[in-house]
Amino acid sequence: MGWPMAENLARTGLEVLGLDALTERAEAFHRQVSTRNDGIENIEALVIMVVNAEQIRSLLFSDALVVGGLASRLPTDACIVQMSTVAPADAEALAADVAAVRPDLHYVDAPVSGGVVGAQAGTLSIMAAGDAPSLERCRPLFDILGQAIFEVGDRPGQGAAMKAVNQLLCGVHIAAAAEALALAEKSGIDRQIALRLVQGSAASSWMLRDRGPRMIEPPGDVTSAIDIFCKDLGIVCDAASSSRAYTPLAHSAHQLFVATAEGGEGRLDDSQLIRTYRRLNGCDPEGGGQA
Amino acid sequence: MGWPMAENLARTGLEVLGLDALTERAEAFHRQVSTRNDGIENIEALVIMVVNAEQIRSLLFSDALVVGGLASRLPTDACIVQMSTVAPADAEALAADVAAVRPDLHYVDAPVSGGVVGAQAGTLSIMAAGDAPSLERCRPLFDILGQAIFEVGDRPGQGAAMKAVNQLLCGVHIAAAAEALALAEKSGIDRQIALRLVQGSAASSWMLRDRGPRMIEPPGDVTSAIDIFCKDLGIVCDAASSSRAYTPLAHSAHQLFVATAEGGEGRLDDSQLIRTYRRLNGCDPEGGGQA
Repeated sequence: MGWPMAENLARTGLEVLGLDALTERAEAFHRQVSTRNDGIENIEALVIMVVNAEQIRSLLFSDALVVGGLASRLPTDACIVQMSTVAPADAEALAADVAAVRPDLHYVDAPVSGGVVGAQAGTLSIMAAGDAPSLERCRPLFDILGQAIFEVGDRPGQGAAMKAVNQLLCGVHIAAAAEALALAEKSGIDRQIALRLVQGSAASSWMLRDRGPRMIEPPGDVTSAIDIFCKDLGIVCDAASSSRAYTPLAHSAHQLFVATAEGGEGRLDDSQLIRTYRRLNGCDPEGGGQA
Repeated sequence: MGWPMAENLARTGLEVLGLDALTERAEAFHRQVSTRNDGIENIEALVIMVVNAEQIRSLLFSDALVVGGLASRLPTDACIVQMSTVAPADAEALAADVAAVRPDLHYVDAPVSGGVVGAQAGTLSIMAAGDAPSLERCRPLFDILGQAIFEVGDRPGQGAAMKAVNQLLCGVHIAAAAEALALAEKSGIDRQIALRLVQGSAASSWMLRDRGPRMIEPPGDVTSAIDIFCKDLGIVCDAASSSRAYTPLAHSAHQLFVATAEGGEGRLDDSQLIRTYRRLNGCDPEGGGQA
């Protein structure tokens, strides 16, 4: 998601320096847009979009990407805009660790929703948390990258917490859609009719309308993998655990995604969670046996 | 829901006989519309909309409402249109019991979704199951009572199964909304911002948009009570049990509704399920402590 976001920023005329652990990707980006390869000391905002907290920690504090780590090389008053999905406790700890070594830097915790499609189109939902001056600094960036910008709190960690709330609903709704459609199949109801009915009733959800059709058709392209929700619902469970909140549905859904991945299907589209329900129902995981 | 449905049927010029265990309600109806009080022997279609399978059994087979029970008094070739929400196994058994004593009658299992509002407006979703000639007979009635008519199977029980699939999603989505909004509150995120965000993202559901605002405001009117979902999710669990399907989310949600009712809040609006989450999170059930 980071590269299309970088391209959107560059397209507005901002000078953008792209960094990637994969040198080829960074070079491909550099050929497309105006950048300063040696401009780390002039960075005003460091936008981070990586896989997990370990990667963030590594690029900020170790020599992995930049000698000395980015945190030590940013100029005074620069703003770190951390947009990856991490657990709230990690988001809080990262901000605190940066503040400990570089109290002059701004830090905003700003995860997003909308996926690669939203990153490309500049229509992400952004859940930003940080002190008022830091959020103020980020607004022009957010207006380029996203469509719906929510300032959800005044301290890093609250953006991640909001993202966890969002992912709780997304993950549980995918699992509920799979549970319901697998029950319809097991009851001998035509799955096309069942889906059409629940899509148009009070039973509907964004995920049901989006993933439902892919649940009852043969597996196709992977839009978002089972593995992503193993991670994201894992973060939800961690978030619930650290804020000591009761989240039984999120835990059930997480275990279903994890079991599906452990069964070797982690790279399938997340709609294929229905295969696990079908197996547990004693049915053909491909959904055979129905017209 | 039965009375507004009867009124919609009467309004089209059909002769409608209203029966109710509460004599006053039946009489109030009779004053409004053209009926034949003594017309049981001329009934073409008996539409049943009551609370549970016991009531259906009682009115069909006992003297409770009509001496001899309605099943024995209907004319040859009449159609029983059972629209109450019951477990699939009950729907199947009722049809079989009618067929055993009156093989000449038609029987359609046709539960609805849309509530009192849909019953009044004639915009119910109807999930009809029965043999083709019986469904054919019911179509003119369904066109008056409903907006979306789905023929979901050829045997009684499949309508009830489809309704269970629908209610699984509705009940789990209410619980997921409560779980997510209570987590947001526990994380110190402004609940208005949290709700606005998830309503507009891939996290949204029909229930989140409908019940969410009522979850974060002081309890108001009761649109649909906690008790209703205790019953409906109980039926979902029964349906899953009899078709031997795996439904962990429905079971979790059911237990939350039951625990809320057992705590003395069964007659509150179902949005108030969030009170149970708040209590389990160690928060004020009223949602106090936030601006």
